[in-house]
Amino acid sequence: MASLPEPITTLTGILSRLPGIGPRSAERLALHLVQSDVSEVKQLAQILVEARERIQTCPICGSLTEQTPCSICSDERRDGGLICLVERPTDIISIEKSGTFHGRYHVLGGKISPLNGVGPEDLRISELESRLSQEPIKEIVVALGTDVEGDATSNYLAKKLARPGLRISRIAHGLPAGSGLEFADELTLTHALAGRREME
Amino acid sequence: MASLPEPITTLTGILSRLPGIGPRSAERLALHLVQSDVSEVKQLAQILVEARERIQTCPICGSLTEQTPCSICSDERRDGGLICLVERPTDIISIEKSGTFHGRYHVLGGKISPLNGVGPEDLRISELESRLSQEPIKEIVVALGTDVEGDATSNYLAKKLARPGLRISRIAHGLPAGSGLEFADELTLTHALAGRREME
Repeated sequence: MASLPEPITTLTGILSRLPGIGPRSAERLALHLVQSDVSEVKQLAQILVEARERIQTCPICGSLTEQTPCSICSDERRDGGLICLVERPTDIISIEKSGTFHGRYHVLGGKISPLNGVGPEDLRISELESRLSQEPIKEIVVALGTDVEGDATSNYLAKKLARPGLRISRIAHGLPAGSGLEFADELTLTHALAGRREME
Repeated sequence: MASLPEPITTLTGILSRLPGIGPRSAERLALHLVQSDVSEVKQLAQILVEARERIQTCPICGSLTEQTPCSICSDERRDGGLICLVERPTDIISIEKSGTFHGRYHVLGGKISPLNGVGPEDLRISELESRLSQEPIKEIVVALGTDVEGDATSNYLAKKLARPGLRISRIAHGLPAGSGLEFADELTLTHALAGRREME
């Protein structure tokens, strides 16, 4: 026995393909799992398949949901004229937790990133364009990250989506809440100064 | 939607119980899995259950194996008089890779650790004692780690297993291969000096 039995190496192999799981932690997980109770492992496998089967992508906004369309897209009290454009489904939760946005969402599914082989055609841009022609959308709030790719994608979309009567805005860049000037980098301060607003 | 759909949070919960998976990486894994192909998720679930069902603990030595007894315990060419005592099944692979041990093994299943609630009765000591009365064992090589718990467990076992005609040894402590004195801590040097051997 100069190596682990085949079922363990096979399991290690498939686990190490998951995000954030390296070869060492995959082996550790595999060894833990083959020594767990059979019933526990079966329960994990069942919950795994069940979760995958119950979760769908909302055909309208692209969020992860059990019902289609999702609860936000089917909520009549939501402002259908206002769309917040986010990168990932989890970004919706972050914004919902703030409790201040009452429009609907659109998940882009990533950012334009030539280095990683992600082009505009890999994102849910055409889906957004068909929404623009079907829904009474008045404003798109671009809420992508503030890194280089987020900036490039936001600028690309601002041009691509521009049409008469549609406002395209981007969430503000500046000092985060509870922080001081001494913790802010130069780019954040540049954005914060450029985006200054008159005090009322 | 102020939180993720229930199937995702359930999956996150069960994944975060695995070793080395915190709440953040569990959520990341769950989100990845519910967005993967259904067939891939089913394959993962199947490999998981299959690995658990095919892997057993060798009733003699305690290693992880597909056949019982394991390939080492059933190998007649192995020296049945020599037993290497290790902490975990994977330790067997480490020693096998060195290619210099031709006896058999016994997996202890842990180290005595009062702080973690592991006492002698939680380890496979009584199994080793029944092997001592049934097999023609002449020497036990204790190959536990060199930390405090490994030392304490080794000393406990040396007393507990002592019987006429049985040699109990412990693998050497000293400088690791390819290292210099400047990298060795005091305890390692103390062990290395005390364990010095005459040069032939």
